[in-house]
Amino acid sequence: MLAVHLEDGRVSTVNVRKPRRPEGFALIRLLAGGICNTDLELERGYYGFRGTPGHEFVGEVIEAYNHQLVGRRVVGEINLACGRCRWCRLSLGRHCPARAVLGILKHPGAFRELLTLPERNLHLLPDTIPTEAGVFVEPLAAACEILDQVSIPCSSTVAVLGDGKLGLLISQVLHARGLRVHQFGRHREKLRIAGAAGVQTHVAGAKLPKAAYDWIVEATGSPQGLADAVRMCRPRGTVILKSTTHGAAPFDTAPVIVQEISLVGSRCGRFEPALELLQGRVINVKDMISGRLTLSQAPQAFERAALRGVLKVLLEPD
Amino acid sequence: MLAVHLEDGRVSTVNVRKPRRPEGFALIRLLAGGICNTDLELERGYYGFRGTPGHEFVGEVIEAYNHQLVGRRVVGEINLACGRCRWCRLSLGRHCPARAVLGILKHPGAFRELLTLPERNLHLLPDTIPTEAGVFVEPLAAACEILDQVSIPCSSTVAVLGDGKLGLLISQVLHARGLRVHQFGRHREKLRIAGAAGVQTHVAGAKLPKAAYDWIVEATGSPQGLADAVRMCRPRGTVILKSTTHGAAPFDTAPVIVQEISLVGSRCGRFEPALELLQGRVINVKDMISGRLTLSQAPQAFERAALRGVLKVLLEPD
Repeated sequence: MLAVHLEDGRVSTVNVRKPRRPEGFALIRLLAGGICNTDLELERGYYGFRGTPGHEFVGEVIEAYNHQLVGRRVVGEINLACGRCRWCRLSLGRHCPARAVLGILKHPGAFRELLTLPERNLHLLPDTIPTEAGVFVEPLAAACEILDQVSIPCSSTVAVLGDGKLGLLISQVLHARGLRVHQFGRHREKLRIAGAAGVQTHVAGAKLPKAAYDWIVEATGSPQGLADAVRMCRPRGTVILKSTTHGAAPFDTAPVIVQEISLVGSRCGRFEPALELLQGRVINVKDMISGRLTLSQAPQAFERAALRGVLKVLLEPD
Repeated sequence: MLAVHLEDGRVSTVNVRKPRRPEGFALIRLLAGGICNTDLELERGYYGFRGTPGHEFVGEVIEAYNHQLVGRRVVGEINLACGRCRWCRLSLGRHCPARAVLGILKHPGAFRELLTLPERNLHLLPDTIPTEAGVFVEPLAAACEILDQVSIPCSSTVAVLGDGKLGLLISQVLHARGLRVHQFGRHREKLRIAGAAGVQTHVAGAKLPKAAYDWIVEATGSPQGLADAVRMCRPRGTVILKSTTHGAAPFDTAPVIVQEISLVGSRCGRFEPALELLQGRVINVKDMISGRLTLSQAPQAFERAALRGVLKVLLEPD
């Protein structure tokens, strides 16, 4: 069967054996996968990754211990947790220290014809959600995670920095939850998607307002974003960090301390709120799809996903 | 009258004119001042400072619009706020964007025979608190500020990183408030002060426990401290930043995001809880005094304050 393979900064499609299905795991046929910025970072050597990437997907269950899953469309939580530790007992398996992570750490990813995941990681995709929209459940859950971590008062205005895929989902989620959102980005076309959803958007170059917001989400994907966000933040305000840039970058903590700013790291989220939002059709993901290619076109798909102005590129079976 | 003067990395004592007393200000005779790490940073050129430093002091009011202050011992909040802005209306004048700061920004400091401060900044020092202990009200308020910012559950163990002046006050405050405290430092002698107050202390070199605490206070005064604190922090834990090191240092935000850690900047605090703690005699500040010198000995006093193993150096009138 076909599988995408990353190694030494090269993307290829290779032929591999059908995966073995361990106890408690389902065998899943890929219907569609989505290329995420993390996949592009893995391509560049982040985590010293080598193997099959992919953690955003919709699939059809082929074999499962729970027979009710067979033949159904599913999405899957990406952290394969031990199920026994302190974090797992708190339903926070995504912080389990023994975890593997689909397509990122110790478990092959979804960009292949057949994949495996623990059945407890799977969520049925409701019939009302098209497959191409279901691919967004995982990043949308990461956007929703913010509201699981911090309590933003309804009357607040939240600034979202960055107009990439995650930034557009975040601004739409916050807007859907009743907050006023000001989104700052560099791409008029991308911002238009959030704008159509009701978000107030600003094409901003170097000019960002200073000490203007109590709540800021940093989703630029750039090491520079953090310092910009801190400058935009009011004393005692909160900056939520969503950009997973890799490696150490110079950062001056003095303004954070003097202004008593809180920085909150934020990663994966629960799938339930994301599925609910997609069912409610309040998040525009359709306009975020910039291309659909097949597994054997993976090198071109990764190339396209890295281009300026491109949003989500989908990978589908040949 | 005598005043300490910092300029181009040099400490001197100079003769200056008696200060003018503006409307709403009291004239105060210095009884004792304390040299803080911030003063040492000002000496090194932090903020491009030039002038009289000093923001920890006890004085006697000589002249005041409120006659009940005259002849009384006082301590003073260091932020001279506008009194009218959003922050001032929230009783958070220490974040007033128009503020001056005693001995740090736009207002001459306390290391001189006579100083001025707005009367609304002054707190009477209760008779039960000796002058030498009153000098610690300001840094003790900064230690107490942590508990005004975050709600640490009673059952938690808090790690305090650093055994400098501020670290020792922080560990004692948290212990006095009923929390279990583990303090990590490099100086057995300094840690003994916190140990005598009931804090569990650890002389730690490079060996610090990993992912071991939900609450960590970073008070090392070193740019390396932040990365150490993040490594010691459990997923979803909180690191309170107390070290005001100056300038950008390399920092990898990836672990903060992946582990969803919160970083909370923390600076000055209200004086009331500090005065209450000193009145209750639950904080050992006496053993933290490493020397007492006069204003005209300021160069030697600053030199001594910067030595390894030295804690608080007091400056008193000649």
